[in-house]
Formats: sequence, structure tokens, C-alpha cells
Amino acid sequence: MGMRPQDIIRNKRDGGELSREEVASFVRGVVDGTWADYQASALLMAVYLNGMTTVEMEALTQAMLGSGEVLDFSEIELPKADKHSTGGVGDKTSLVIAPLVAACGVAVPMISGRGLGHTGGTLDKLEAIPGYRVHLDLSEFRKVLARVGYAMMGQTAEIAPADKRLYALRDATETVESIPLIVASIMSKKLAAGLGALVLDVKTGSGAFMRDEGRARALAKALVRTGHSCGVQTEALLTDMSQPLGAAVGNANEVQECILIMRGESGDEARDVRELSLELAARMVALAGAAGSHEEARRRVERALESGAALERFRRNVEEQGGDPRVCDDPDRLSDLTVREVRVESVHAGYVEAVDAAEIGRALASIGGGRARVEDKIDPAVGYHARARTGQQVSTGEPLGLLYCRPGPKADAAAARIRAAYTVGDAAPDRVPELIKEVIAQ
Amino acid sequence: MGMRPQDIIRNKRDGGELSREEVASFVRGVVDGTWADYQASALLMAVYLNGMTTVEMEALTQAMLGSGEVLDFSEIELPKADKHSTGGVGDKTSLVIAPLVAACGVAVPMISGRGLGHTGGTLDKLEAIPGYRVHLDLSEFRKVLARVGYAMMGQTAEIAPADKRLYALRDATETVESIPLIVASIMSKKLAAGLGALVLDVKTGSGAFMRDEGRARALAKALVRTGHSCGVQTEALLTDMSQPLGAAVGNANEVQECILIMRGESGDEARDVRELSLELAARMVALAGAAGSHEEARRRVERALESGAALERFRRNVEEQGGDPRVCDDPDRLSDLTVREVRVESVHAGYVEAVDAAEIGRALASIGGGRARVEDKIDPAVGYHARARTGQQVSTGEPLGLLYCRPGPKADAAAARIRAAYTVGDAAPDRVPELIKEVIAQ
Repeated sequence: MGMRPQDIIRNKRDGGELSREEVASFVRGVVDGTWADYQASALLMAVYLNGMTTVEMEALTQAMLGSGEVLDFSEIELPKADKHSTGGVGDKTSLVIAPLVAACGVAVPMISGRGLGHTGGTLDKLEAIPGYRVHLDLSEFRKVLARVGYAMMGQTAEIAPADKRLYALRDATETVESIPLIVASIMSKKLAAGLGALVLDVKTGSGAFMRDEGRARALAKALVRTGHSCGVQTEALLTDMSQPLGAAVGNANEVQECILIMRGESGDEARDVRELSLELAARMVALAGAAGSHEEARRRVERALESGAALERFRRNVEEQGGDPRVCDDPDRLSDLTVREVRVESVHAGYVEAVDAAEIGRALASIGGGRARVEDKIDPAVGYHARARTGQQVSTGEPLGLLYCRPGPKADAAAARIRAAYTVGDAAPDRVPELIKEVIAQ
Repeated sequence: MGMRPQDIIRNKRDGGELSREEVASFVRGVVDGTWADYQASALLMAVYLNGMTTVEMEALTQAMLGSGEVLDFSEIELPKADKHSTGGVGDKTSLVIAPLVAACGVAVPMISGRGLGHTGGTLDKLEAIPGYRVHLDLSEFRKVLARVGYAMMGQTAEIAPADKRLYALRDATETVESIPLIVASIMSKKLAAGLGALVLDVKTGSGAFMRDEGRARALAKALVRTGHSCGVQTEALLTDMSQPLGAAVGNANEVQECILIMRGESGDEARDVRELSLELAARMVALAGAAGSHEEARRRVERALESGAALERFRRNVEEQGGDPRVCDDPDRLSDLTVREVRVESVHAGYVEAVDAAEIGRALASIGGGRARVEDKIDPAVGYHARARTGQQVSTGEPLGLLYCRPGPKADAAAARIRAAYTVGDAAPDRVPELIKEVIAQ
């Protein structure tokens, strides 16, 4: 092409719209090294500050997608759909949604991630099931997908390699929180699975990456516009992450909570996870064209959950991916009896006014329940069971939740951090946050 | 300090004012490698787009100055002053100003640069004098300064090393044209010579780096504010660079023009160089406190020029720095008889409406009269003698100027480029640009 990095940087620096060719030249240069890292980071900062149009976001997504392998599952004749969440605390819906949607006749080739910082990751949760293998090669993934209707694996080195290099640069240069860069990163990885439909769960609140609702809404809209530009049916839900989703935060205990939901045995404390999973699943089914309307799709996913069809798919997936399927019949098998339960008690009487969900996530990560750094090891048994929810009345000494931990000073510190993450006040809050704040469709 | 680059980048990214400590930590990190290049370039882009306050500019200047050696000429009891030009075509005033100011009792420890792109450099011009050495070590420089009242050398590796690394990054990331970054780069190098007074010649027009007059004025103001913040008496002149300054562009011929001025033998075509040199020199003398008023300073520099005192200082400097002083008596010695004169003729009759001075500079660089790249060799004999000036009437076939070149196809192309750099129209332009547009003092 012979395009100079400087000219492309200057164009964005001056607030211009990059052409498709300029965007492609940038992404190619990042992968083949003809762009120096310091040139790429200068452009990333210019994008952060000057933004990108929908056309640019689509071009960036396509270029990043094209930097790697695009999976072809055309041999599977079912419609294909996936879900992506921007991440939160206790956000375990993928484990319920994938089998639920598969049970409704839509294939789900789900490529998931690891937890980092305050958020958990689907791969870590799955690995809490004894024997479960997330490192499938593509032919195994394809086989599981064909047999079960869904399969789970991590991103391979072949998918969107440009994203890996750019993410490392963004992380070191404070350009992670740029809507166009987030959009291209998410969409390039998701579209690599050859989907017809994609539903996005964009979270906002204390446990989300975008705490600010306005920014989260803008992200949701940009994702939906870009998805459509790329030829994929896309919808987004703007959802609450102002407290953990469900009661379980951790790895083994989150899987437990999901199995209980699929067994019809979950209580009120998991109502939000169940409802959000049903709604996201229904939207995937409808968007993929496997139901004539949202109402029909919603009825079908509810039936699939209540009939045990979703649990049956889950069991077959666990078997196919090497895990111990007995956890489906006896979720207590996921409990590690060497772990200790520590009560996190309220020091005041009053009402839970607010919860710093991210702080709960970070406190857990500090004792092995998550990762502070990419290279950290996870202890699947470490977790937190939240009992008090926003708006709830608590008395002094009443447990806000239970911490599952290995005894020691770090665990005491984590318990204190979690306690401090709750704001208990004198008056009941005016309103409790709504689970689903908005549906963003094209 | 333990300051994380990310936190500093984020602060500037979000439009904040960096603290003195943050700026110092950045500059230190660029030099010691604790900041990666890609982090530095992200901050440079954020500075480009979000700007810097005067306090930040001063902090950046001081930190860059402090990254290297600060020269101490306190053994010389004269006041010390210097001039800096933002660069132009035919801009040779340093060669006249340094001896002129020295003749008025103000020492000038002048650290100069090389030409690059369309602009010439003082060091290259001086090297057109047979034998002249610009690579002095510090003790030689000090000796010449003490004996002659002025000395000329290039920047050493010890002066503001942070500037070298940052400039290389700016050049590769389109962040050169940022006023705060220009200010800190200029001021940190100039202040390393331990000055009491500094006069800046900020050029605007077709041959300047800042063609836009508003931007050039903003730069001039930022330079003056920052100079004062750093404790140096500073003034700036905003001057015209919409056509070459004087008639001579090149290296040997520019030195010739300066010697003719100092000999009192220059004609009307060098009137602007002479006037600008006198005015800049007078301001240096006044600002350094060696004259009670601008008027007195102006009278003294005029006298020093007319009396031959400036030429005498020049002669002694040439001798001390190893050059052939006979050029002072016989400037024709600088002519290279192997060079050919090519007439650049007007193809139309009419009035010179505009001149693209930068294009003349680049055309000369393409045939060895300047440098397209840092590593290019200079042919001192290559040059251009501009005859037609803006507003002047020309007839068809009349020479716009004479090109001194080595015959060949490149020379023909250069002549054609210079011809095309002149816009000749039917009507005389309403007004001829003023040489000195504005004086910016604190």
C-alpha cells in the first residue's frame, strides 16, 4: 500500500475520518511490525480523544477480524448465535444461556475469556468442574458443537491476533476505555466464530468496567450499530451491575448456582441471574430466527429451562469436554470441604444503600478467587456468597454474606474489604436498581 | 518516586494539569527507559491534543534542561544573550547577530543546529567557510567565547538528552507541531547555555514551520511566558517568512551575503536580512541590560555594524574556530567556480503575487544545498539567488533568480520546482508582507 503511519496518525490527530484502507494499513502494520509500537500507541491515544465513526469502527472490526482466522461452521445447519457480556461480578449467565439456547435449536460456538481484576471469566468457572477441558483444538470444538449444540473454548492464537497486540498497548497507555477500541476488540473476536446473531450484555454500575450509565449506553449503541454494519443481527441489553449478579461470586460456587437454576432449585437470591439468562437467551433465539417473535422465543427458553432440557445439554457438554457430569445431579460435589466459611457481618443496623461490587471482586482476587495479574493461579473453591442485597434491611452483626477462603491474614483483610464495600444507611433507598435498564436494537 | 506512567498518561488524557513531579517523572523515565517508547508517545499525543498550561511548559522545560548538562559561563562577566529562530529559508541572521551583539559587550554562547527539510542550519552555513570547525569541545568553546565575545557550536550529547529521544518519537508520531512540545524543546536547549536574555524570531508564512500566523503568534507568546517563568528575560518577534529572507539561499552564498552586510556592501536585496539582524541584535543588547533602552541599543548595534566592529568580531571568530579569515576581505573566495549558474525565468509577465519559500528550500535540498534526511551530505556551493520579490513586476523570460548547481537532470527538475514556486499574476498585490509583524514581550 505504501501508506505512511505518520499520515494516518495525522489524519486521526486532526479529527478526520480514517478510510477503510488507512484502518486496514494500521492493523496490518501492527501485526507485521511495519508500525512501531510507539506509532500504534500514538494513534490509539488519538482515537481515544477524537473518537471514530461507525464506518471506522466497522472497518477496524473487519481489519482485526481479518488479521486472523475466521472459523467456518457452515457444516452445522442450525442458526448460530452468541452472547457477550462486558463483564461484572457474579456474572455467570453464559453457563446457563449456552445450554438453554442450544436446547432451542440454535448452535452456540462460544469463545470465552479468563477473569482479570475484579471480574470473573467463563473459562475459569468451567474449570471448577473436575476434569473440564477448555483447551479444545478446533476439530474437537467443532465435534462438541455438532453433538451438543454448544461448545466452549478460549480464544486461540489464530483469532484476531491484532487484538492481542493492541490490547497490550492499550493496557500500558490508558487507552483501554475507548468506545471504538472496545467495540472493535469485542466484535472482531466474536465475529470470528461466524455468527448470524449476537446479543450483548452491556453492564453498568459499581461492578462494571463502564460504571457510568451514559457511557455504557453509548457503548451498547456503538456495538449494535457495528454488528449490523458487519452483517450480524445484533441487540444489546443495558443491565445493572451495581451489586453482584446472583448470590455466588467465585468459581465453583458460581457453577453451583447455575446448576441449581437449571435444576429448578435456585431460590430468590438467584432470581436476577435466572431472569437475565432467560431474557438474553430468548433474544438470541429470536434474533437467530429460530422463533417468530420475542414472546415465542421467551416461552421456548422458559420451557427448555423448566423441562430440564437445558440441564441435559449442559450435562452432555460437560461429558464431551471431559468434565465430571455427576456435578449436574449433585452440585455439592463442587464444594471443597477444606475451605472455611467466614461471616462478613454488618457493623451497623440499617438498609443496604449501595454495594461496591468491583471491590468485592478485587477482594476475592486477592485471596485466589480471581486474578490480579494475568499469570495468577485461581483457587476455584474461594468465593463469596452475598446475602444482603441493595435496599435490604440488616441488623448489627447480621451476615451481609459468607466468604469461602483459606484461613490467614489475607483472608481477614479480604473479609474487611468486603464489609467496607457495603454502605449501610438509616433510610431505605428510594428505588432498587432495575435489572434490565434498556434494550438497544437497530 | 514510584509514579506509574499510566497514571500520568491518564491525567493528561483527561485534560488535567500535570504536576511538576509528574512531568519530571515522565522526562526521567524517557531518559532511563522506565517509560516505554509507546507510553511516551501516548503522552505526547495527549499533550498534542489537550495542550499544556504555562506551569506545565515551564516544568517540562526545566525537566528536559535538567536531563543533561547545564553550561556554566559565570567566569565570563559580561551579560549573556542568545537568539533562536524557528527556522526559515535564507534565514542567516545568526551569522550577523552574534558578532554584532558581541561587539556591543554582550557575550553570545550560541548553540546552533543543522538544516533539515526546507530550512538551512547555521552550522552548515559556517562550514562553508574553508576550515571552519563547529565541533568544539566545551573548553575550546569557552576559550573562543572569552576571547571573541561569541562562539558557535552544535548541540552536544550532554545537553538536554531527553529532547533527542522525545524529538525522534515526535517525528515518528506526528506530534512535532505541538506548541508546548516545541516550547520545551527550544527552551531546554537554549537555557542550557546559562543565558540572562533570549530573543526569539518566530517565523510565519510559506517558508516557516508554522505557516499560520495565529499559531505562530501563540507559539511566540508561549515561548515568552515560559522563558520568563524560567527566569530568563525573553522577547519574541513575529516575522515574515512568506519569501526567502534576503536574496541568498544555500550555504556559501548565505555566508557571502552576511559578510557583504558586515562590510557595508550589501544592496537593496539584502535589506530585510540587515534590518532583521539589527532589530534582533538590538533587542538582545537591551534585554541583556547592556543598554538603557531599546533606542540606545539600536543606535549601538547600528554603529557596531557601520564601524566594521561586527566584521572584526566575525573575523576573529573565524580565525579562532579554524576558518580562513580571508573570506572577510574577499567574499568571492566562497564562490565555487565549478558550479553552474542556471537562470530561473518567469514564464508569464505580471507581478509576483506569492512565493512558496519552503518549496525553494526543498528544491535546493534535492540537489545538495540542504538535507532531505539527517544523514545527507551538503554541497556548500549549491544555492539560489532570489531576484524577484513579492509585489515585484516581471516580464516573460526575466530571471526570477539564479540557481547555482551541478549540471544534470536533478538540477533541471530543481529549477522547474523553483519556477513553479512563484505565483505570477496580472495585478500587483494589495500589500507586501511586513517584515516584523509584532513584538511579543512579557
